[in-house]
Amino acid sequence: MSEHHYAVIMAGGGGTRLWPVSRKEKPKQLLPLLGEDTLFQSTVARLKDLFPPERILVVTVEEQAREMREQAPQIPAENYLIEPSPRGTASVVGLAAMVLKKRDSQAAMAILPSDHFIRNVDLFHYLLKAAFDVAENGYLVTLGITPTLPSTAYGYIQQGKPLDGNYKYPVYTAESFKEKPNEQTAQQLLRMGDHSWNSGMFIWRADTILNEIGKQMPDLSEALNAIGETWDAPERIETLNKLWPQLKNETVDYGIMENSERVAVLPAGGLGWSDVGSWSSLFEVLLPDMNGNISTNSALHLPHETHNTLVYGGHDRLIVTIGVDDMVIIDTGDALLVCKTDQSQRVKEVVEHLRKHRQENFL
Amino acid sequence: MSEHHYAVIMAGGGGTRLWPVSRKEKPKQLLPLLGEDTLFQSTVARLKDLFPPERILVVTVEEQAREMREQAPQIPAENYLIEPSPRGTASVVGLAAMVLKKRDSQAAMAILPSDHFIRNVDLFHYLLKAAFDVAENGYLVTLGITPTLPSTAYGYIQQGKPLDGNYKYPVYTAESFKEKPNEQTAQQLLRMGDHSWNSGMFIWRADTILNEIGKQMPDLSEALNAIGETWDAPERIETLNKLWPQLKNETVDYGIMENSERVAVLPAGGLGWSDVGSWSSLFEVLLPDMNGNISTNSALHLPHETHNTLVYGGHDRLIVTIGVDDMVIIDTGDALLVCKTDQSQRVKEVVEHLRKHRQENFL
Repeated sequence: MSEHHYAVIMAGGGGTRLWPVSRKEKPKQLLPLLGEDTLFQSTVARLKDLFPPERILVVTVEEQAREMREQAPQIPAENYLIEPSPRGTASVVGLAAMVLKKRDSQAAMAILPSDHFIRNVDLFHYLLKAAFDVAENGYLVTLGITPTLPSTAYGYIQQGKPLDGNYKYPVYTAESFKEKPNEQTAQQLLRMGDHSWNSGMFIWRADTILNEIGKQMPDLSEALNAIGETWDAPERIETLNKLWPQLKNETVDYGIMENSERVAVLPAGGLGWSDVGSWSSLFEVLLPDMNGNISTNSALHLPHETHNTLVYGGHDRLIVTIGVDDMVIIDTGDALLVCKTDQSQRVKEVVEHLRKHRQENFL
Repeated sequence: MSEHHYAVIMAGGGGTRLWPVSRKEKPKQLLPLLGEDTLFQSTVARLKDLFPPERILVVTVEEQAREMREQAPQIPAENYLIEPSPRGTASVVGLAAMVLKKRDSQAAMAILPSDHFIRNVDLFHYLLKAAFDVAENGYLVTLGITPTLPSTAYGYIQQGKPLDGNYKYPVYTAESFKEKPNEQTAQQLLRMGDHSWNSGMFIWRADTILNEIGKQMPDLSEALNAIGETWDAPERIETLNKLWPQLKNETVDYGIMENSERVAVLPAGGLGWSDVGSWSSLFEVLLPDMNGNISTNSALHLPHETHNTLVYGGHDRLIVTIGVDDMVIIDTGDALLVCKTDQSQRVKEVVEHLRKHRQENFL
């Protein structure tokens, strides 16, 4: 990997879809959801051999930064970029690009969510290298994930023409972006074969993305310039605190990618990727037994006539399931979730309900 | 009620079908399963206005007697008859009859399990009175329960001819006893209309049942005579400890009722009776809400798209159910049961498994 290549880990979110394990104070990326390491630690570890810690940046909010510094002390303190408040991924990406451009005028960066799972790390490394090659030619590269089921939980990218160039991996123009589809449309997209899941992983040069922001989000571009001017001065925080809250809350996808003509997509199969976006996704990430069951603490799970069921947590108690099919059972100290797997996207509605009813202790 | 009429509460059992709430040390009858009172206390309370405490006997084992005395201190200490070990209901019934006959040669008794539920207590009183009238004519009376569904959890009694006599309630000879049927047979018995559930509640004179034991279980009869001889002597315990373990472990139904020609059945409808014999029976006992759900702690149960589901326990934690149908969720401190309602009879298999694997702390 070139010395001008950087990784930028985005970790601002406080998702609610893995409640009751993830909480307001302990968002998903800071939790050891899938083993001993937290998702954030796994994301950092996955970059080993590719980027030295000095070339790994983290963009996050103050509330999470302290915990992250503890979890990944090898990343230099100045590489933690603190958003005064979450303002969408477009702002995050812009901030990181601005900072990197100032450090290194030739910088190129891989934007990586902090809370995803990737089983095949070797392939991930290979794809990143291939993507940086494409990015060096001025493209906004996005990693697509070849769908393995008609998921309604992901956005989709349709690939267009193959991109000319002597690349290590097939790469295409992006024909269109599609929001999370309904079941029927998802079936159709899967059959069409030219649609990938939008993974939220992007690779581009800092100057490419800053140019694109200049064209498509001039307000953001202007704010970034102003922030950049005082970035290395004592007024950094003051400027940030003043300008950041005024930014439009926008995603990279809607704000930039959908209307850009420089988007390239690398449709990756076999990566073993998941956004760990709901409890049902754990069936892809952890390996079920012969009955389709997953127990994170199998010594204390007694399944009778139980199939395709996830039993998560319950580290100090016995969990018996009888005649249970296609369920997730999430057992934490103060809350228990029993949910039909195909409805696990609705967990966020429960969190919303708790918020409305001010049951703060369960949030 | 005549001064010669007694109630005998049977409380020896250590059922396993309401695990994980009922445990070896805390059998079902000693637990406040359905409210503030324990099932035993409710059984005692149900006899109020019918029997003074001096005419209520309890047959149980030593392990449970202490707790029972605390739960129902109004019953005199000498009315607790202690089995050295459980030897089936035939022995219990024989012991109680022998003791009562010694106290009162004209004694008649209602044998009542300690762990049943009855909603309509007034009707229960009415039926008991009617049954005592029949018993005074030398019948072994059993309360039948008019079936409300084709249950496979109960034994059935087929009624024969109406019994002559000026009784307050229709009463029949017993044509036959049937063990717990399979689903198909249960459907058939329900359609036939002349079958009642065997409730395990019996009413008879002490001399009637002792004569019948003499005919059908001569070994038991002989042992009871020997026990009776030293009952009021210092050797009571010694004799009991010697003879009791040699008794055949037999139920009243198989040992006596099935082959007797003096059985009468009072088929009772509308009693709101349940043997509380499995978690599924709580749907009959507690009143489900409009979605068919029951929560024993509804303030901490949040149901989303949940139907016909029992959430029991979890008094200090939030329980969220999403897309859950026809389940029972039983949450205790150290164990959690999630079970399809129609498989709740299988809970005893789990307890058997735990016993085999010596997981004593969960028994």
